[in-house]
Amino acid sequence: MQPESYRYETVRQSVLEQIESGGLKPGDKAPSLRRLAQRMRVSLSTVLLAYGQLESEGVLEARPKSGYFVRARQKRLPLPRVKSCPDEFPETLNRARLIGKLLENMARRDLVPLGVARTDEALLPLAQLNRMLAQTLRDEGERTGYYGPVPGLESLRVQIASHCLDAGIECGPSGVVVTNGAMEALHVALRSVTRPGDTVAIASPTYYCFLQLLENLGLRVIEVPSRPGEGVRPADLALITERFRVAACVLTPNFNNPDGALTPDPAKAEIVEILARTGTPLIEDDVYGDLHHGPERPRCCKSYDREGLVLHCSSFSKSLSPGYRVGWLMPGRFLDKALEIKATVSVATATPTQMAVAEFLRQGLMHRHLKRLRPALKSMMDNMLGLIERHFPPGTRATRPSGGTVCWVELPGGGDGVEFMRLAMDAGISAAPGALFSSQGCFRRFVRLSAGVRQGPELEAAVKTLGRIAWELSDAGHETPASEPWENDPIAMPEALLKDS
Amino acid sequence: MQPESYRYETVRQSVLEQIESGGLKPGDKAPSLRRLAQRMRVSLSTVLLAYGQLESEGVLEARPKSGYFVRARQKRLPLPRVKSCPDEFPETLNRARLIGKLLENMARRDLVPLGVARTDEALLPLAQLNRMLAQTLRDEGERTGYYGPVPGLESLRVQIASHCLDAGIECGPSGVVVTNGAMEALHVALRSVTRPGDTVAIASPTYYCFLQLLENLGLRVIEVPSRPGEGVRPADLALITERFRVAACVLTPNFNNPDGALTPDPAKAEIVEILARTGTPLIEDDVYGDLHHGPERPRCCKSYDREGLVLHCSSFSKSLSPGYRVGWLMPGRFLDKALEIKATVSVATATPTQMAVAEFLRQGLMHRHLKRLRPALKSMMDNMLGLIERHFPPGTRATRPSGGTVCWVELPGGGDGVEFMRLAMDAGISAAPGALFSSQGCFRRFVRLSAGVRQGPELEAAVKTLGRIAWELSDAGHETPASEPWENDPIAMPEALLKDS
Repeated sequence: MQPESYRYETVRQSVLEQIESGGLKPGDKAPSLRRLAQRMRVSLSTVLLAYGQLESEGVLEARPKSGYFVRARQKRLPLPRVKSCPDEFPETLNRARLIGKLLENMARRDLVPLGVARTDEALLPLAQLNRMLAQTLRDEGERTGYYGPVPGLESLRVQIASHCLDAGIECGPSGVVVTNGAMEALHVALRSVTRPGDTVAIASPTYYCFLQLLENLGLRVIEVPSRPGEGVRPADLALITERFRVAACVLTPNFNNPDGALTPDPAKAEIVEILARTGTPLIEDDVYGDLHHGPERPRCCKSYDREGLVLHCSSFSKSLSPGYRVGWLMPGRFLDKALEIKATVSVATATPTQMAVAEFLRQGLMHRHLKRLRPALKSMMDNMLGLIERHFPPGTRATRPSGGTVCWVELPGGGDGVEFMRLAMDAGISAAPGALFSSQGCFRRFVRLSAGVRQGPELEAAVKTLGRIAWELSDAGHETPASEPWENDPIAMPEALLKDS
Repeated sequence: MQPESYRYETVRQSVLEQIESGGLKPGDKAPSLRRLAQRMRVSLSTVLLAYGQLESEGVLEARPKSGYFVRARQKRLPLPRVKSCPDEFPETLNRARLIGKLLENMARRDLVPLGVARTDEALLPLAQLNRMLAQTLRDEGERTGYYGPVPGLESLRVQIASHCLDAGIECGPSGVVVTNGAMEALHVALRSVTRPGDTVAIASPTYYCFLQLLENLGLRVIEVPSRPGEGVRPADLALITERFRVAACVLTPNFNNPDGALTPDPAKAEIVEILARTGTPLIEDDVYGDLHHGPERPRCCKSYDREGLVLHCSSFSKSLSPGYRVGWLMPGRFLDKALEIKATVSVATATPTQMAVAEFLRQGLMHRHLKRLRPALKSMMDNMLGLIERHFPPGTRATRPSGGTVCWVELPGGGDGVEFMRLAMDAGISAAPGALFSSQGCFRRFVRLSAGVRQGPELEAAVKTLGRIAWELSDAGHETPASEPWENDPIAMPEALLKDS
C-alpha cells in the first residue's frame, strides 16, 4: 500500500487532470468525497486532505453543506501551495550564516530592504517618540538612569495592559513583563515552559529567528502547516497534541511571518481549547496584530485563555520603533518562572526607552498613529503584490495578507530562494530565502519580500530586477505543476516523538 | 585514614590551640612546613593547605623565603574563613523566591539598600548622561529609533574597545558585542560555549544571579574556593581542569561579588595559561574592574589571552547607569556563535542608550568621572567596615575589598544569613544572605552588604540595627570557633564528573 502522502497526491493530481482536460469546468461541483473515495479506493480522509490542499491552492472552493466546487481561474496571483519541498535542512545551506547575513542587512542603509520585516521608518512616529524621550529626560531627571524593576516600569505595564484590551486581552499590569523586544519575550516564554530535548509544535513556515532560537535551546520541532487563508488549523493541532508529547506550541495567529496567514478568531478559540485539554502551553507571537489592514483588530489567543496557559509575546518594534527595543510578555500562570528567567538573561529592560513609550501611550498617541499607519500598510501591500504580478514570471504564486508587512512568494519551477537572494544582493536588494522558514528546508522555492518599504520608482525598479532574476531562475518561465509530493504530513512524524513510545 | 579535609582541619586546630595557649605569640615563626608534617604525620600539602587557610583568616602571615609568622592580634575585623557550611542547598530555602525578593528590592526606594550591589546614584553621572542622550536626540534625530546592528553600534564599539585598553585588553571594535548589561553578556557567553548537562567551574562564593543562570541553563557546577586576599588560586583551577571535564570557567577576577576578592595580575596570567592547556574557555566578568580603590587599574584575564579563549563580560551599570542597560561581551574566537545567540535572545540592544553612552565616552568624560568615583567608593568602604566593627558582635569577620562596592560579612556562631535578611527587611533594610552565593548552600552564616550607599546618619542607624540583629542571632554574642569542618574541597567532587569516568 502506498504511504498516505502518495495516495493523497494521486487524488490531487487526478482532480487537477480533470480540470486541465476540461472534464471539470470553473463552477462545476467536484465529485463528492464519498464517490471519489470509492472510485479511487482510498479513505475518505485521504480525499479530504487532497481537497483541503486544492482549496488552499485556490483550485477548489468549499461551499457549506454543498460540497467542493471548481473555482474560476484567478486573474490575481494564485496562492502558494502549502508545502513544496520536504527534506532535511540541506547541509549545503548554512542556516546560521544565512541568518547572520540577513541580520547584517537589517541595519544596512545601502540596500533596498525587501529582506527585512520592517516598517518603513518614514511611517513610524520616531520624531514624536524622540520628543517623548526628551520630555522624559526633563521630567524624570536622574531617575531615567536608575535600575527599573525586573518586570518593567509600573507606568509602562499599566499602559501595555490597557493597550491590549483592543486585542480582547484582559490582563492586569502585574501580569505583564516588559522585555527587550518580542524576541526576548519569546525566548523567556520558551525557557519558562520547556527543557532541552522537549518537542515544540510550530507553524510551517515560521520566522527563521524562532527556528534558530529553538535549535539553540536544544528543542525539537514538529511543523504544522500554516495555510494561506487560515493559518494553522485547530484540527491539525489536535492531531499533533493527541499523538505526540508536545511541551509547547509556538504560533503567530495574526499575520504569521512569513506567509501573513491570519487565523480566524473562532479558530483561535478552538486552538486554545484544544491545547487546554492536554495542558499544553501556547506561546503566541502577536507583533503584527496591531497592523491589520482592515477595520477590525483581530483578537488574540490570549483573549480566550481561561487557564493561564497562553504566553502572549509582542512588541512595539513594528508599530513604533525597532530601535527602542520595548516588547512584552504576558506569561499567564508561568509568571514567576518568567521573571526568574528574565532576571538571569538581562535583569531588566532599559529605563529611558520604557519611560518614553509609556508616555507615548499615556498621551493616547498610539491610536491616532495606528489609524494612519494601517491604510498606508494596506496600500503598500497592494502595491507590492501588483508589482510582483506585473514583473514576475507566470507560475509565480503569492499570499495576500490582510495585515502585517510581508508577503510570501513561491517562484515558478526551477526557482531557488537562496540563489534568488544571492542574485538580489548582487543587485543591491535584500530578500529572505524560503528555506530559512522551515527546520526541514521546505519552501526552497519561496522568498519572503517586505511590502513595508519606501514607495516610489526605486521600489518598482527593485521589484522589476527581482522579476528578472525570477525569470532567469525559472524553467523556461512557464508554470510547472508541483513536482514534489506533499510529504511530511504532520502525522508522519518520527516514531520517537509518539506519546506511547 | 582520615579524609584530606579532616587532616587539614586537625593541623589548623593544632596551630590555633598553640596560639591560644600562648605557645605561639604574635611575631613568632610558626613551625616549618616540613617539621610540622613530620610531627603530625601528614603530607606537606596538607600543612600547606592549613597554613594557607590560616593566612587567609589573618592568623598567620607568609614572609617570602622566611616562612609563616603569627600575626599580631588584629584590631580590625578578621577575614572570614574560606568556607563555612558545606551542604546541599537546603530544601527549606527557596533560592528562586529569595532571589526574586532581592531583585524586587533592587528598584524599591523605601529600603536602606544594603542588599543590592549598586553604586549610590548620587555618585553616578546621571545628569551628564541625560544631557548626552538629549543631545543625541537632537543630533541623530529619527535614527535613534532605527534598528541597530546585532553586534551594537559601531560608534559605541569603538569607544568600548578604547576604554578597555586601560584593563590591558587589545581588542578591535569588531570583537565587541554590545549587550543589555553584563548579565546578557554572561548569558550569551555561557550559551556560546556550553550545552545543557555540561559542567562549569565557578568561584565560591559567586554572585547568585550567575548561579541561577547556570541552574536554568541545565549546567552543573564545580565550586572553586575564592580566598579573600587572592581570589581563586591558579593551582586550584589546574587541579579541577586536569581532573574534571570542565566546559567553561566563570570568574570575576577583579573584586569578586560578594567577597570583593582580587586575583593578582600574575595569577590571572597563570589562570589563562592553565585553561589554555586544556582549551577551556574562561568567561570573565569584570563589572567591578573600573571601580578599584587604589591608583592602579588591575588588568583582566582577557589581556593575557593569546588563544581567543577568554570571553570578557562587562558593563557600565556600576560605573555610569544601571538603568541604561549597556554592557558588552568580547567573545574571542566564539564571536560568530555569540552573535547568533545574541540575535535570538534580544536581536539588538536599544539604540538611544547606546548612542548616549558612546557620546559620553567619546567626550572623554569617563576618565574624569572614574577619577572622582574611586576615592569616594574607597571612603565608603572604609566607613562601612568601620561601622560593622563598631556595631556588630565580636566574632564577626569581614573582607576588606580594595575595589567594588560590596563587602562580605561572616556572622559569629549562631548567625544565619537568611534569618538576618528577614529581620533586616522588617527593619526597612535590605541585605543579601550568604547561602545564595553558593550552589550548595555554603556561607549560611554570611551576609553581603553594599558599601556603595548614601552616607550619613541613616546609614549608621541601619548598620547599628543590623548589628543588633547579629547580636540577637549570635550564640551569646561571643566568638565561637568554626564548628564545621572545611569539607567540600574541590578535589572531593562527585565521581561522575571525573574525566576518566
